[in-house]
Amino acid sequence: MGLDWQELYAERFRFSQESPLGNVLRYGELPDMISLAGGYPAAELFPAEAFREAFDRVLATDAKVALQYSSAEGYLPLREYLVDRMSRFGIKSSPEELLITHGSQQGLDLVARLFVDPGSLVVVEDPCYVGGLQAFNSYEARYVAIPTDEEGMQVDRLEAALVDGQLHPRLIYALPNFQNPSGSTLSLSRRRQLLELSHRHRIPILEDDPYGELRYEGKKLPSLKSMDSEGNVIYLGTFSKILAPGIRVGWVVAPEQVIRRLLDGKQAADLHTSTLVQRATYEVCRQGLLDGHVAKMRPVYRRRRDAMLRALTEQFGSGARWSRPEGGLFLWLQLPHVVDSDAMLQDAVAEKVAYVPGSAFSPSGEKNSAIRLNFSSSTPEQIEEGVRRLTRVASRWQEKLAEGKGPALRVNLARAA
Amino acid sequence: MGLDWQELYAERFRFSQESPLGNVLRYGELPDMISLAGGYPAAELFPAEAFREAFDRVLATDAKVALQYSSAEGYLPLREYLVDRMSRFGIKSSPEELLITHGSQQGLDLVARLFVDPGSLVVVEDPCYVGGLQAFNSYEARYVAIPTDEEGMQVDRLEAALVDGQLHPRLIYALPNFQNPSGSTLSLSRRRQLLELSHRHRIPILEDDPYGELRYEGKKLPSLKSMDSEGNVIYLGTFSKILAPGIRVGWVVAPEQVIRRLLDGKQAADLHTSTLVQRATYEVCRQGLLDGHVAKMRPVYRRRRDAMLRALTEQFGSGARWSRPEGGLFLWLQLPHVVDSDAMLQDAVAEKVAYVPGSAFSPSGEKNSAIRLNFSSSTPEQIEEGVRRLTRVASRWQEKLAEGKGPALRVNLARAA
Repeated sequence: MGLDWQELYAERFRFSQESPLGNVLRYGELPDMISLAGGYPAAELFPAEAFREAFDRVLATDAKVALQYSSAEGYLPLREYLVDRMSRFGIKSSPEELLITHGSQQGLDLVARLFVDPGSLVVVEDPCYVGGLQAFNSYEARYVAIPTDEEGMQVDRLEAALVDGQLHPRLIYALPNFQNPSGSTLSLSRRRQLLELSHRHRIPILEDDPYGELRYEGKKLPSLKSMDSEGNVIYLGTFSKILAPGIRVGWVVAPEQVIRRLLDGKQAADLHTSTLVQRATYEVCRQGLLDGHVAKMRPVYRRRRDAMLRALTEQFGSGARWSRPEGGLFLWLQLPHVVDSDAMLQDAVAEKVAYVPGSAFSPSGEKNSAIRLNFSSSTPEQIEEGVRRLTRVASRWQEKLAEGKGPALRVNLARAA
Repeated sequence: MGLDWQELYAERFRFSQESPLGNVLRYGELPDMISLAGGYPAAELFPAEAFREAFDRVLATDAKVALQYSSAEGYLPLREYLVDRMSRFGIKSSPEELLITHGSQQGLDLVARLFVDPGSLVVVEDPCYVGGLQAFNSYEARYVAIPTDEEGMQVDRLEAALVDGQLHPRLIYALPNFQNPSGSTLSLSRRRQLLELSHRHRIPILEDDPYGELRYEGKKLPSLKSMDSEGNVIYLGTFSKILAPGIRVGWVVAPEQVIRRLLDGKQAADLHTSTLVQRATYEVCRQGLLDGHVAKMRPVYRRRRDAMLRALTEQFGSGARWSRPEGGLFLWLQLPHVVDSDAMLQDAVAEKVAYVPGSAFSPSGEKNSAIRLNFSSSTPEQIEEGVRRLTRVASRWQEKLAEGKGPALRVNLARAA
């Protein structure tokens, strides 16, 4: 007889569920499935040849260094390249203020590790990026969940929550551009207001910006980091959406003293990010491929977004509403409030279409009637067919519920913006 | 004026020092320095061409998948390969019991995350691998530090500590083969005794085995994992020492239910290990390169170890003692007890030789008179010259101390085995 492992686990694991995304993403591998679930970039756009040449060059000329251990902060030329690139977007930094991470998910983990004690309050958007919740849950955070609308986090509500000085959040987590999952973008006036709150209440902001360069219409808004006069903002960037996620390279920008402590966390977490991958990524970047590559991606993704919006308009009946993202990979579909989008998923999978139920993005984990739809990794034709299938399933559910036959959603929906 | 960041950090960071290794490893980059400090494998032995061909093949034939997101548990063919390879060493497992990590340091982090609450007790060897201490410190562990001798952890002492049932450690952390930093190997009888304690007191063992294949003499001993009849052992393996550390690929073997929770931690930590690197590593492995490669490394490292032992014997005076490792990368040099090896390091660096002071490996962080010497990353000539320089510095310190001039070490040295 073996150990009772369950009783040996740390508190942070005893009450947590298994990851909400794991199973959903696996549906994408089933035959004939149209998966609108993942957050995958379009694989056919990956600059495969550029990577092939880059790895070849690095391994032909510099293998002894590239295959060896290296320092936790990351490859200096890559950090210098990123400092320079970000300066074009108004973010001033130095290589000492930048740390290379194993994807931006690791940036979330390292920042949570540095700021979150068990029970610490973290301000999050509701709905919130699931990876952010997973990172904060690892350190037993509690949440101040602020609803979002088409202009992003409702900062007024945060202001109201902070006004009496009773709450002392350790961190404000914000994904201002084309938020995952809602697709909404924080307006300029709310950006100013959020920074003002950060300064007044002395709360750092963690700005997560994986999609900032993927804007398909409308005017580019400045990042919180670039607007911040007091150095309160920690910024997360990643190559996952502008180059390729399979390499796992992201970065954190923060004041140098914060980077030094994040470095201690990085060493404890995994010593450093792959020396070889960092060098090859730098090879890909230094030839100036990135701007042209992103310029090629935007119209493709825009067409896919448009196809999804069109299909929803043409096919979805009354009672459903959806966001109209100006960029990014996702939109947020709000079904009639009685539909439990977790329960409906099995039917959708039977109909060969997959999505992520809104509960995955709920800071409290409660079930709801929203779903996240991805439009970057399917063709316009697949999207149209996927939405058609989804419409069939949703209509069936609405009818069943109208006849009093189905399991109606019975949770508090006040938070649904 | 900016934030007072220091007061915002989580408890786990407020009292911890900056990483003890960062600066020491940087000495290796100074001109004419002979660094015996790092734990670096010999870069001239890296199978650079095999990696070059592997990355080229993967990117030429399978880039769309290799550059995309993938699942947290890792690439199935690589897991199957590792299951098969480990079975040759007596470790029975299945792909569902194996998780690919971003180096084995991440294995340490994920296991600590799963088992360690603030204040939890972890049994460690004293001296202990510094990366293990960093991982456990991240989760605010306290230590039951068990001294080591030439047969590894003094398991009798652990038995005595556990006998009255007052201590309830969450985990026993052991590095049984050619331990980092001591170079000692846990004897077969102590392996049996340690497993017996694990079974009787129901404490899981975390077996860290980066050097097991690097034995230069003596009889190979079975791993704790292979001897364990009750499934109490979690095993960490890595490609860092048998292939290359710059790729950052390691693995964890554990009961399937434990792997499932480690997977939740892995997703929160960094989603998954680089898809591309896993596939290329598998390409390198599946052609059967590994056995021949390790067979090539052993005699090279053995010569370097022999050179270091010979130089120490020829040059070091009385009062110093050192371990005689049968494998691995390190030996442990015990200077006369009044010498503070932290204080002596500056003199050594001025003399152009670097080492890691024993305090880095002390669970309590206390200064002591031991130093860790690496023999894998320098040629026999460099090792001979490095030991010569070290001897000069140490002699000078002994003389100064004998004359009452230097700062003698004033800490409790009872733990020095």
